[in-house]
Amino acid sequence: MKQDTVERDTINGDPSRASAVRPRLLARLQSVLTTEDLDAIVTCSPENFAYVTGFVVPSQHLLRHRHAMAIVTADGDSTLFCVDMEETTVRARAPGASLAVFAEFADDAIEVLAATLRDLGLSDKRIGIELAYLPAADFRRLEKALPRAAFTGIDSALARLRQIKDADEIALLTRLSRIADKAIADALAAARPGDTEMDIAGHLTRNVFDAGAQDFKLMIVATGERSQLPNVGPTDRVLSRGDVCRVEIFTMIDGYHAGVCRTAVVQEPPAGAEDIWSVLTGCKHRILDMIRPGASCRATYDDFIATLRRHHLPPIGFVGHGIGLFLHEDPYLGATPTIGRTEDAKLEAGMVLGFEPLCYRTGRGFGLQNKDMVAVTDDGANLLSDHSDTDQLLVIA
Amino acid sequence: MKQDTVERDTINGDPSRASAVRPRLLARLQSVLTTEDLDAIVTCSPENFAYVTGFVVPSQHLLRHRHAMAIVTADGDSTLFCVDMEETTVRARAPGASLAVFAEFADDAIEVLAATLRDLGLSDKRIGIELAYLPAADFRRLEKALPRAAFTGIDSALARLRQIKDADEIALLTRLSRIADKAIADALAAARPGDTEMDIAGHLTRNVFDAGAQDFKLMIVATGERSQLPNVGPTDRVLSRGDVCRVEIFTMIDGYHAGVCRTAVVQEPPAGAEDIWSVLTGCKHRILDMIRPGASCRATYDDFIATLRRHHLPPIGFVGHGIGLFLHEDPYLGATPTIGRTEDAKLEAGMVLGFEPLCYRTGRGFGLQNKDMVAVTDDGANLLSDHSDTDQLLVIA
Repeated sequence: MKQDTVERDTINGDPSRASAVRPRLLARLQSVLTTEDLDAIVTCSPENFAYVTGFVVPSQHLLRHRHAMAIVTADGDSTLFCVDMEETTVRARAPGASLAVFAEFADDAIEVLAATLRDLGLSDKRIGIELAYLPAADFRRLEKALPRAAFTGIDSALARLRQIKDADEIALLTRLSRIADKAIADALAAARPGDTEMDIAGHLTRNVFDAGAQDFKLMIVATGERSQLPNVGPTDRVLSRGDVCRVEIFTMIDGYHAGVCRTAVVQEPPAGAEDIWSVLTGCKHRILDMIRPGASCRATYDDFIATLRRHHLPPIGFVGHGIGLFLHEDPYLGATPTIGRTEDAKLEAGMVLGFEPLCYRTGRGFGLQNKDMVAVTDDGANLLSDHSDTDQLLVIA
Repeated sequence: MKQDTVERDTINGDPSRASAVRPRLLARLQSVLTTEDLDAIVTCSPENFAYVTGFVVPSQHLLRHRHAMAIVTADGDSTLFCVDMEETTVRARAPGASLAVFAEFADDAIEVLAATLRDLGLSDKRIGIELAYLPAADFRRLEKALPRAAFTGIDSALARLRQIKDADEIALLTRLSRIADKAIADALAAARPGDTEMDIAGHLTRNVFDAGAQDFKLMIVATGERSQLPNVGPTDRVLSRGDVCRVEIFTMIDGYHAGVCRTAVVQEPPAGAEDIWSVLTGCKHRILDMIRPGASCRATYDDFIATLRRHHLPPIGFVGHGIGLFLHEDPYLGATPTIGRTEDAKLEAGMVLGFEPLCYRTGRGFGLQNKDMVAVTDDGANLLSDHSDTDQLLVIA
């Protein structure tokens, strides 16, 4: 913990310093500071670093000790905090921003963070910080290093801000949605009986990178009896006539995700698949019609569950969820739209949903799922994943 | 927080219950319990759940609130703890194991965890838990729910156990190393001038899935002037004669990682590249010769840095690192072999290293990197990524 080895810019009083905060966000963060009566916000999670700055520190989500944080104070100043290994990347993406850097091996990151907060005059101030992300051991050391500071969890307030996407975010999510949709459609179009799930995965991953995604998460390739399993990757299972193929992927750019799922059948649908698909398609259109500002999240879910029940299909926990910088965000189109709270939530313009009428356990030995990306606009639902026609099951020829 | 909705098996006194702990690990965990004077260990992180059980809960690393934990008590009993959404997967992978399940929306996971620990008779006992993973807000609630329990950080002890791989782990890491090595070699062999970095990425990701990897992390495709940037993914940059291409990928199966990096040149090397590669290759062979049980981690690094200095190349923070269920594990072949500690560390048989003589900033407008997977055996270094001959720069024809 060689505090003196820390390379740190002057972080106070330099008027030439650029803000590290995305311009559109500054007023919203200021309003959170006011509403929550805070002197500063410290983001800790990869999603909120990306939210505040507009870029991702590549290794943050891979190595938890490589903290990357954004400190935003009530007077509108901002300081970034990162590991030495990522300094060049941060300087390139946030030119001119104030930056505090800790040495991965020589420094205790939390000691450097505490020193940075002290230098910013925050050692006895009210600081909002992500307590649902920051590990308990780190927070213990931070409290010990700044015993007069008052820390409060800012996770919910930031999550609430992130629910409403601006025009740039919706443009990016639209692009990601189309990449995922077309990548799956093309991978399924290239598949043949005798191919394996790994073959589909190979096509699919190539397609998403070719189309410009920077990364992806949670690729699901679940065929035949495996189509009943929720979150499973590809295996060597060989496709044969009558198999159901459930394929999902979350494409990523600058930390944002779009999740799309399509279901195909190999040559011909198994018995009952078309009827159940028709039920799910009916749900899809009904709920798309319900989606508009002010709509009850719980009501959309109740409608879906009632339909499943009428057709003797098993219920699931939700039929949609917010999405953006985190894979699942509130609100859920579910009985509990906000995790940990009992009341209903209303949809608002600017929300983006992963919307997925599905049935894993149809009772016929296969599962069916369609997942679209949908933006809530003043005019209703805007389908972002608009490449494939999903009213019929796709067919692998 | 409807505690009564929790579906939970009888977790006490059922002699027919199978252990959820990998057989080879039980004695080692028991020794940690004894050494640390604990009544139970609770794993919280994805890597330690996989370490204890031998399998991954698919969505744990994607959605932090979907906790998956393994509770191992001093009397050898084990209980798994997971979210309802993943219950079928956990039951399939750990048949007969004791299982406590929380409902994602209706329950507070930490309340259910506390109830489970209470039912196991641990409410006033000494419990080792991963405080470097568990978020501060969760730990606060856990301490409040079990005020008489004594919690202590078990992160370092588990990390120390994970450093020494058993035969099954080394077999898996060997398989993953060869998949990564061959996937990169084949992607580079298929590349042509005029291709983009995204084309290489497309080939590479297809190759790793075709070869049986379940997932991958941190794909680096950094060509031309971008080859100087540490952790960057593919872009639309077009390959042309004289470009350096740095390509790295971490392949994954059952939570384990193997990281391999290869460097190629397009048709001909840029000025100086062969000379610098020859310096790095010399380092590679010298350090491979130094790797054996008892070798000083710091000495291998010092040797590397001295060579870089002699050739007026800039130093880096480490030339290797432990690897397994986490992307970087101690020890590092670095000035600080154990993060946060000042003393040297010695290599031991069973350790597996990602070993990477590299120079990002050669001063010539390109960076060069080779990364191999190496097991420490009683006979010295065993190269696991043994597909490519890396003594010369690879060539894209």
